[in-house]
Formats: sequence, C-alpha cells, structure tokens
Amino acid sequence: MRKGEQTRQRLVDAAAALLQTRGYYGTGINQVIAESGAPRGSLYFHFPGGKEELAASAVRSAGRRWQAALLEVFDAEPSLVAGVDAVCRYLADNLRDSGFDDGCPVATVALESAPTSQPLHEACAEVYADWQTYVSERLVAGGVDAERAADMATALVALVEGAVLLCKAHRSVEPLERVARQAAPLLAAPGGS
Amino acid sequence: MRKGEQTRQRLVDAAAALLQTRGYYGTGINQVIAESGAPRGSLYFHFPGGKEELAASAVRSAGRRWQAALLEVFDAEPSLVAGVDAVCRYLADNLRDSGFDDGCPVATVALESAPTSQPLHEACAEVYADWQTYVSERLVAGGVDAERAADMATALVALVEGAVLLCKAHRSVEPLERVARQAAPLLAAPGGS
Repeated sequence: MRKGEQTRQRLVDAAAALLQTRGYYGTGINQVIAESGAPRGSLYFHFPGGKEELAASAVRSAGRRWQAALLEVFDAEPSLVAGVDAVCRYLADNLRDSGFDDGCPVATVALESAPTSQPLHEACAEVYADWQTYVSERLVAGGVDAERAADMATALVALVEGAVLLCKAHRSVEPLERVARQAAPLLAAPGGS
Repeated sequence: MRKGEQTRQRLVDAAAALLQTRGYYGTGINQVIAESGAPRGSLYFHFPGGKEELAASAVRSAGRRWQAALLEVFDAEPSLVAGVDAVCRYLADNLRDSGFDDGCPVATVALESAPTSQPLHEACAEVYADWQTYVSERLVAGGVDAERAADMATALVALVEGAVLLCKAHRSVEPLERVARQAAPLLAAPGGS
C-alpha cells in the first residue's frame, strides 16, 4: 500500500471506530485526526467533502470488514441455524470484550444521520443492502424458497441489529442469547405470510 | 398541570423530539430551549443534572408514550400475528409521514450514549425492559408458553427495532413490510431452542 493510501486508510479506520461508539454528531474531526495520527492537511486532501465524505467512506469500509468477519463465522458452520447461532455468539463476545462500546459500525450513523445526509444515507443503505443480499443468497443455497429468502434475510438482519441494540442498552449479552434461540423456529417455519 | 410542570414537560418533549432525530451528541441544550419555548433558567431548575438528566427523562417519557401508542394499535387486533402486523404498519406510516426522521425515540441514544453514560443506560434499559415485559405478557395471554415468551418477546422487540433501523437507512418502509410477513412463522413455530 502506498503511503498516501495508508494515511487515507488510517483516517477511515479512526473515523469508523469513533462513529461506532459515538455516532456522527459525537465524532469530531480533530479527534479523528488525533486518533489516526495522520497529518491534519491529509484529511481534506483525501476527503475534499470533509467529515461527511470521510464518514461515508468509514461506514462502507467498516461494513465490508464486518461482513467479511461474520461471513467467516457463518460459513464455518454446517447449517443455517448453527450459522446464525455462531454469529450471535461472536457478536456477544465482541460486545462483552469492548464493554458494550462496539456493536454495529453502521447502525448509529443510520439512525442519526441517514435521514438528513444524502451521502451517509447512500453509504448506510448500500452496506445494509449488501448484507441483506448476502444473507438471502446463503438462505437460497441452504434450501429456502427464493421469494421467502428475501423477506427472511431482511428479518434476520433486523433481528441481529435489534438484538445488538438491546445488548448495548442493557449492557448485557442476554438479548443476543434469547434471539439466537428464536432463529431456529424462524428458519424452520415452512411458509411466509 | 401546574405551570412549572408544563414548562418541565415542554423541555422533555422538545428534548425527546431532538434525541429521536439527531441523538444525544447532536442535540444542543440551546436548541432544546429554543424549541421548547421555555425560559433558559428553567432547564437547570427542573434538571439540576443538565443535559444528561433531561435526556434520561426524555427517553423515559418518550418510551412510555410509544408504548401506550403501540399498545393501543396492538390491542385493537384479534390475534398476536395481526397485532404485530398492525404495529409494523403503524410504524411504517409514521416513518413515511415524517420523511424517515422519526423512528424509535430510544434507539439512537441507546447506541451512542448508553454504553458510556450511567443515567442514559438506566433510562434506555428501563424502557426496553418494560417493552419486553409487556410483549411477553401479551404472548402468555395469547397462549405462548411462559418460558418461550420471554425469548420471543425479546426477539419481537429486536425484530421491530431492527426493521425501523433498516427503514431509516434505506428511506423505505419495505423492511417493515418484509419483517411483518416473517412475524407469522416466528409466532406460529411450536418450540424454542
């Protein structure tokens, strides 16, 4: 990776970490620069659109990283139910290890900024659409009817996102544990509406 | 309601509206005062703990109001499945009508502030615990086994919270529509883990 690319990635990583724990409004440009160790001038060189453009890149980058990590956990399991269970356990471990600071790198931005910022809306929508598509493909590969797979994939992403939210609110991994137990009946049920 | 009480409630309502759309860090005390129309001195009179104490009250107040509104929608339906469907449609209408600004009055604060603020953690945890208990009681009344009801209630709250999050990210009510269709198999499934 060239030096310019490394600096850019350091800014993106620092922004992603701050966005995850404090959201868009709680993340200051000065703090991103300080935590990245990048020279101040590099921010507007790499992101002429400033904080908004940097945050959109951070959401996309963290989204790809999360997807790759969860994919690896999921694909190591022999069934859809075991895969969902493993993902819930992985996320619970992450939450516990970070003192409930970490969670989804997209959710906070999606709630507080996506409604009013077009670039952040596009970044968040793109990441979630990718996740929904990926889960849907895995469900179809696992034998779920294609039409139902799209609904079920959205429900699974929503279920896990909601459970992470409840874990952060309660500072407890119990919601993810409870939700993991409900994934089995959801996946096993024969038909949709 | 006495005048002091009215001023206090105006501050709480203005804070709740801002927290819902911009989160804790994006909500400025000056903006709360301006939108409430309350005299500046009244804030620290009613909330000696300042912004954090006001936000905790706003989360509790908005949580109670949301619970009452959703309860009314849910209880007007003849079955659990119809109730969940009606709640999803009600939330979709709310999101659409507000241009996806509104959503859950607790979620943004729960993600960005609950991990680091004890008063906000307590307020968010209390509201979600109330919702989970309420849904669980309704499930038991609807014939669900008590042990499974607690898991299923957490899953339903997570599912709806996650769907609202996806709707805001996509600026579309489709996630709530898809999730509503998956509530039927979830509720119909015979067993837990």
